[in-house]
Amino acid sequence: MPLPVIGRIMEKTMLYDNLTVSPRGHLLMDGADTSELAKEFGTPLYVLSENRIRENCRKYTEAFRKYFPEGSVPAYAGKALCFRGIYPIIESEGLYADVVSAGEIYTALSAGFPAEKLFFHGSNKTDEEIRFGLDRHVGTFVVDNFSELRALEREAASRGITQDVLLRVTVGLDPHTLDAINTGKVDSQFGTPIETGAAMEILLQTLQMKHLRVLGFHSHIGSQIFDFKPFCDQIDILLDFSAKTREKAGFTPQVLNLGGGFAVPYVESDPKVDIGENIAGIAAHLQAGLEKYGLPAPRIMMEPGRSIVADAGLTLYTAGGVKTIEGYRSYVTVDGGMTDNPRYALYKSSYTVLNASRMNERSDFMCTLAGRCCESGDRIAENILLPKPERGDLIAVLTTGAYNYSMASNYNRIPRPALVILKDGKPRLSVKRETFEDLVKREML
Amino acid sequence: MPLPVIGRIMEKTMLYDNLTVSPRGHLLMDGADTSELAKEFGTPLYVLSENRIRENCRKYTEAFRKYFPEGSVPAYAGKALCFRGIYPIIESEGLYADVVSAGEIYTALSAGFPAEKLFFHGSNKTDEEIRFGLDRHVGTFVVDNFSELRALEREAASRGITQDVLLRVTVGLDPHTLDAINTGKVDSQFGTPIETGAAMEILLQTLQMKHLRVLGFHSHIGSQIFDFKPFCDQIDILLDFSAKTREKAGFTPQVLNLGGGFAVPYVESDPKVDIGENIAGIAAHLQAGLEKYGLPAPRIMMEPGRSIVADAGLTLYTAGGVKTIEGYRSYVTVDGGMTDNPRYALYKSSYTVLNASRMNERSDFMCTLAGRCCESGDRIAENILLPKPERGDLIAVLTTGAYNYSMASNYNRIPRPALVILKDGKPRLSVKRETFEDLVKREML
Repeated sequence: MPLPVIGRIMEKTMLYDNLTVSPRGHLLMDGADTSELAKEFGTPLYVLSENRIRENCRKYTEAFRKYFPEGSVPAYAGKALCFRGIYPIIESEGLYADVVSAGEIYTALSAGFPAEKLFFHGSNKTDEEIRFGLDRHVGTFVVDNFSELRALEREAASRGITQDVLLRVTVGLDPHTLDAINTGKVDSQFGTPIETGAAMEILLQTLQMKHLRVLGFHSHIGSQIFDFKPFCDQIDILLDFSAKTREKAGFTPQVLNLGGGFAVPYVESDPKVDIGENIAGIAAHLQAGLEKYGLPAPRIMMEPGRSIVADAGLTLYTAGGVKTIEGYRSYVTVDGGMTDNPRYALYKSSYTVLNASRMNERSDFMCTLAGRCCESGDRIAENILLPKPERGDLIAVLTTGAYNYSMASNYNRIPRPALVILKDGKPRLSVKRETFEDLVKREML
Repeated sequence: MPLPVIGRIMEKTMLYDNLTVSPRGHLLMDGADTSELAKEFGTPLYVLSENRIRENCRKYTEAFRKYFPEGSVPAYAGKALCFRGIYPIIESEGLYADVVSAGEIYTALSAGFPAEKLFFHGSNKTDEEIRFGLDRHVGTFVVDNFSELRALEREAASRGITQDVLLRVTVGLDPHTLDAINTGKVDSQFGTPIETGAAMEILLQTLQMKHLRVLGFHSHIGSQIFDFKPFCDQIDILLDFSAKTREKAGFTPQVLNLGGGFAVPYVESDPKVDIGENIAGIAAHLQAGLEKYGLPAPRIMMEPGRSIVADAGLTLYTAGGVKTIEGYRSYVTVDGGMTDNPRYALYKSSYTVLNASRMNERSDFMCTLAGRCCESGDRIAENILLPKPERGDLIAVLTTGAYNYSMASNYNRIPRPALVILKDGKPRLSVKRETFEDLVKREML
């Protein structure tokens, strides 16, 4: 689909090649007119491109097949966007899935995802969740800590089964990402640190347990990583640790799970990441390391979430008040905000915003996009340029596929939006809009 | 109920006189054993003292009756904690209610709250919400901006009714509270500023509208305000503005709504606020101002939310992993976190935390209380002292009545907690725990 040439400012803000503009100046995603989607399904509306999700999956699966040892597989990190409709897509693309709670397990299984392909994460699995996971035959538990280990062994023993596990270790790396999503430092609530000896100790204890079988190690160094260097540092530490576990415990990992995936660009100035190239880089580094230590090739796993779904999604809002405060600034308020997308409130995240009703007009109106909550912090973007909106215009916020629906709340009693999936440009309603009845359903008088 | 003397460290952390300790060392709220509540209703659990809510309401209603002009009334700001069960309590205490969305209106009305006592706020009421509010006979709309004004007049006209309104103005004050909850500055997405002339202009336009009747002005300077001085500055500006509207438009306000209420202490070092004394201070300042300008006494409104419910609530969690990272710090992870209480993640808010199972033991274990989400930012409190917890101990976080349930999410697919109300120490389940079925209910395959 050709992109009409409309002027410098507008072009600059079109992040993705599946976004185009209709002759009437409407924003199209995968060829679907966002105005028609808003009319049919209402706003705020999450729109997700199935085609884009599949493309993103294939960047990982193809590079994994090409570069990593046989049996290596990416697992989709459901916490980025967990709802029933995502699992059939992920499964048909050959990905495994990482789940972080009984609720995510329930969601995946209720959508028909195979339990044996689930990796059960979490720094605080409750006893109830451990039982839930075992009873539903979750393939692999990723054991975070000693007290979980004991609880898991006890529950597996009482069922007379042997449960596959990975041990989550911390490698003591700081990949210079945001503090709130940096998980690889020694000082972390996640996993057991290699540096302090705790990781060796938990391995030795696990190897003694009759109902657990250790497949290997998991570590996670953070989210939104732009190149493969931090993964190489991670591999160095994991291989060095593996050489030590071979020596001390006769154990070499069959699986090394490197945790999260790569970053996605939210604004034009963010670097673009070539996933294939970066995985090739990791694989070369891995190969050299394996040779150096004389270790057998493990199956490699990664757990991309954001890079599978973020750029496949956008959110459509209707503009309400457009308010210019003379001498200060202008505000455009939309019918959603921190309730459907808390990432600005939490992390001051950047977004690319378009006036989806006026893609043919110049982006010369400087404004702050505010949400509708009664809270000053309810913002989506500050100091952005848009074609000046009028009440009723459609505003599109790009790259909202990850950590939007999954983090949404009912603050100010705002029902959560509907979610529509586009397949080859054809929409299907995948998550119904929440109703007022839904909001009060659990509340008794 | 007498508080057993248990040692300096523990006493320091007991913020409220309705919290006591049983001979077995369990935390009691209004005499109810929190361990029994956890056993009966599970964790995480929101617990709310109806008695405390009523006491808090009475601090306002009694001071209003004593000090403010006749007809003055506080309105409960539902955004702090909006669920059906709160409204019968609020109504029986004689408060009005401030609502910020159709969802809040629906909740209040479905709990039997009278529509005429509702004040409908919000910087971006959609056309649909305006119709919803009019059709349900909401007593007063608080008009935020010009485009809302036109939409409201149009809808009121089409119904042949006259709708009471307040006009939300910004007074240009900065009460030195947190940016995210500071709403009184001129540069704000809320209301029309007096300073720029916009407030006068919106009054003049509203007075021309046949289907709207202006009762007066609303302004809100922020949340979590510790003394009455900022309210006096606010009154100075509002009365000066009222004198000008009398001169220019022949209009004097029957109602002045001062917005939010007072702060609550979250930790021992926070100042305690005497609501009665502060309202007396505001009233004296108001009286002097009215005399200075020769203005008739308006009915005064305030909209306390946090100070009605925050200290009436606590959250009970079960401790999971207790992890000491040698040379760094210790983590205690609980079965909730940013999903039921996002205030640390959003604002780095401080909380008082107790080991509700070991109130008789010394608080000598320095730790960080982490939530269970797969996100490093999921914390509730850092560097706190607790009696060292074991897996299964009950952890109580105090002052969670406001902006916890109302802001809760299903991030990581964690179901939202149940909410129990204690009346005279007897529990009743008011909000049922969310189920996995609830989570996927709107999600189609």
